[in-house]
Amino acid sequence: MGKNIESNLANTPHFNPLNPQEFRKQAHEMVDFIADYYQNIDSYPVLSQVQPGYLRANLPQNAPSLPESLETILEDVKNQIIPGMTHWLSPNFFAFFPSTVSTAGFLGEMLCTCFNSVGFNWIASPAATELEMLLPKSFMFQGTGGGVIQNTTSEAILVTLIAARDKALDVDGSGNLNKFVVYASDQTHSTFAKACKMVGISPRNIRLIPTTIDAGFSLSPIQLKAAVEADMENGLVPLYLCVTLGTTSTTAVDPIELLAGVAKEHGMWVHVDAAYAGSACICPEFHHHLNGVELVDSLSLSPHKWLLSGLDCWVKNPTALVKALSTNPEYLRNKQSESDSVVDFKDWQVGTGRRFKSLRLWLIFRTYGVVNLQDHIRSDVGMAKIFEDFVRSDPRFEIVVPREFGLVCFRLNPDENFGSDYTELSNQKLLDWVNSTGRVYMTHTKAGGIYVLRFAVGATLTGDNHVVAAWKLIKEGADALLKTV
Amino acid sequence: MGKNIESNLANTPHFNPLNPQEFRKQAHEMVDFIADYYQNIDSYPVLSQVQPGYLRANLPQNAPSLPESLETILEDVKNQIIPGMTHWLSPNFFAFFPSTVSTAGFLGEMLCTCFNSVGFNWIASPAATELEMLLPKSFMFQGTGGGVIQNTTSEAILVTLIAARDKALDVDGSGNLNKFVVYASDQTHSTFAKACKMVGISPRNIRLIPTTIDAGFSLSPIQLKAAVEADMENGLVPLYLCVTLGTTSTTAVDPIELLAGVAKEHGMWVHVDAAYAGSACICPEFHHHLNGVELVDSLSLSPHKWLLSGLDCWVKNPTALVKALSTNPEYLRNKQSESDSVVDFKDWQVGTGRRFKSLRLWLIFRTYGVVNLQDHIRSDVGMAKIFEDFVRSDPRFEIVVPREFGLVCFRLNPDENFGSDYTELSNQKLLDWVNSTGRVYMTHTKAGGIYVLRFAVGATLTGDNHVVAAWKLIKEGADALLKTV
Ligand SMILES: Cc1ncc(COP(=O)(O)O)c(C=O)c1O
Ligand SMILES: Cc1ncc(COP(=O)(O)O)c(C=O)c1O
Repeated sequence: MGKNIESNLANTPHFNPLNPQEFRKQAHEMVDFIADYYQNIDSYPVLSQVQPGYLRANLPQNAPSLPESLETILEDVKNQIIPGMTHWLSPNFFAFFPSTVSTAGFLGEMLCTCFNSVGFNWIASPAATELEMLLPKSFMFQGTGGGVIQNTTSEAILVTLIAARDKALDVDGSGNLNKFVVYASDQTHSTFAKACKMVGISPRNIRLIPTTIDAGFSLSPIQLKAAVEADMENGLVPLYLCVTLGTTSTTAVDPIELLAGVAKEHGMWVHVDAAYAGSACICPEFHHHLNGVELVDSLSLSPHKWLLSGLDCWVKNPTALVKALSTNPEYLRNKQSESDSVVDFKDWQVGTGRRFKSLRLWLIFRTYGVVNLQDHIRSDVGMAKIFEDFVRSDPRFEIVVPREFGLVCFRLNPDENFGSDYTELSNQKLLDWVNSTGRVYMTHTKAGGIYVLRFAVGATLTGDNHVVAAWKLIKEGADALLKTV
Repeated sequence: MGKNIESNLANTPHFNPLNPQEFRKQAHEMVDFIADYYQNIDSYPVLSQVQPGYLRANLPQNAPSLPESLETILEDVKNQIIPGMTHWLSPNFFAFFPSTVSTAGFLGEMLCTCFNSVGFNWIASPAATELEMLLPKSFMFQGTGGGVIQNTTSEAILVTLIAARDKALDVDGSGNLNKFVVYASDQTHSTFAKACKMVGISPRNIRLIPTTIDAGFSLSPIQLKAAVEADMENGLVPLYLCVTLGTTSTTAVDPIELLAGVAKEHGMWVHVDAAYAGSACICPEFHHHLNGVELVDSLSLSPHKWLLSGLDCWVKNPTALVKALSTNPEYLRNKQSESDSVVDFKDWQVGTGRRFKSLRLWLIFRTYGVVNLQDHIRSDVGMAKIFEDFVRSDPRFEIVVPREFGLVCFRLNPDENFGSDYTELSNQKLLDWVNSTGRVYMTHTKAGGIYVLRFAVGATLTGDNHVVAAWKLIKEGADALLKTV
């Protein structure tokens, strides 16, 4: 019976956008294009010099009807896209925190894309789930609870806040969110307050406790305790504390052990945002920053910031999330999930679908080994130290807070600049000038009211020579600026 | 002054995990590994046959101290990872919805990984922001509002719910979430109810309106109206309607225009989840399903499901999100953002960081052109039609709901199975047997109480021959099963 239909099948070949021969040829071309890009990356202005709207003027706004060749498209990448890039992998990129990459991370990403599996539950991709479960030990986190990869720190904070909120609502039973209070320092990444608002915490109940330059912008357990007690006196319920290991502005380290001690007395959920500096803790000399981590409910770190992986966030201890995030629709049911012998990672995150991202970290750990990864952290810290020494050796500049990791926070000295009012403007001018050359890209922040220049070492390709050249350029800018004043 | 320090610099080369020569060599090796995988993919069991916990027994649990060679690692991928994969790209994968990929999508992903930019604001990656802004027209969505790439549909629903909630709270002023009600059909993806709970909507106020097989499991505007009116009489406030274009179970299409008409009378936010079937609307013959889309507040589609791209979700009309999701910390301030001449995509999503994902879709549209993309949709639909005809030609089977896209919903006929109680068990047995062969992977669902087998055509490499072979296997299973009864 199926017979007739079968013989009716058109034997015209279907359009096949994944022909293995063509894939092989074009992917090899792309590898060469990318290797050339890395080879020449030094020659591009690190900060893009284009004007807003530049691309709309240069590329068609509609998808073409007919196919175009890879050559044509790569020409456009070269001529239209690359000039509009701020080159995060340039060795002259010292802005924000770095977004590191590595050959192994790249290969891991290729494999992840190759399999293109959507591992929402175990059966949909057993290897994807199980490889991710092997990672925690590599991060030197022994304890229980495992780990899971989220897309961003923001998502990690969001899902842990939801778990904390739902646990507290269960205990409380009123269904009223308005009495929950959350705590962090005023140096905490802005995404914390955003996530709190997303889950329905009243902005009135977000306590961003002030820090001081004298305490290195670190959150004081005494002040936390005072804030919590004041809130409780007012009938509010302490819900969640976000501790930062390496703040975005100045890499301040909040003392996990003391803070968790205070928070745990009042049953709060404690999360550690170790987005940047968490990776450094693979070196024994930085590991003490994690003291007390066994007291916390969750910890996140972004391996793309310093561990040579693409954009990601790794969260320790996410089992507590499952209650708040699980679903069980019929179309995803299967024997293994029902038998409770497996983990379904969809219940540990916002989305249902998820990629096989653990391949990247796994390739990185295996390709480089812990020894080289430690070297990599240390060499960045060493280069930051070189830069710090440069700054200290020039009396026109000052170090604003002591350097701990790969970030140097410095500025033109107020004394050199006719009073403090003028200092911010001078530093802004210096920054604008340096960035406008396209030879270095740095960013700024404000901490304790002080306008600070941030020099973040960590782009994978940066070597001593780039740090030396950057310092020369900054001095040149200062020379010109201070002459004209 | 810097002089002495400079001359003190150690001239030992740093560990460089992105050496361009080594990158070139190893990435070429990986391309060949992947091309070989695609070439041999037919030979692997499509559903992994491993047992829970298999990997822990076969791979080291700690990161090695010292580096390992790419060859060693690829051996482990071959021997340990691949056997544990459920091969989503296998031409014999007919489960869930497909996760499509293509050479162009792969190359786009490589470029995205290559630049490794973190485009939270315009200046951090002008080209990344501007290319993403060029996409909407390619999706045939003319209107205003633009589009933005999110990670998953779940995230798209989450952020639009938050925007709707905050808008309504602003109007209302009470700060009390408990009176908001949200609506969808009982066929809506489970992630909808999950997202509602995440943003603090009471589970009591989530209305999943029953659908019927007679109405093709489509949400009835009359029933929606009745539900909304009943809630309003009880003093509740209608907040958000989620309409699905192509439900997960059976690809039912909710009528956008009529539903939006009802919802808009009461000021609700209307979101369209077009995760799977939205891509089909690039073909004129499917475009009518979008009738009324100009009335809705947001629409999401997942190009990985049918548009040859990796895991993603594209959201139309996200400008309304900015109010709920924006942040403005000092460390991200810059002239362009301040001047309002640019878009900062961090304010349209959960996370701060974001990858240059639009490169994938851009490469796909340009490499294939609209004509080939339409062909691709049509050829999948054509193959599904072939399968449907097979099923219809065999009286032991029945089609449960009419096929509209690439999914065929069918089952062993109750009449053949000694009554309806036994039907579910027989179909389950058939499914288990088919999947256990490793030659085909299908999944099931329940709709209107009926246990349904789902045959979803769309894996990129699937051709007529695979559909024919799958049908033969299913018949073989039915033969054996019905003989033993
Ligand atoms: C300490 C810290 N937390 C959170 C973030 C935001 O991370 P994401 O973009 O992953 O949400 C950053 C980004 O720089 C950060 O430095
Ligand atoms: C209609 C529909 N909506 C939402 C989802 C969930 O998508 P995501 O994993 O992107 O959150 C799916 C997944 O299959 C779907 O079919």
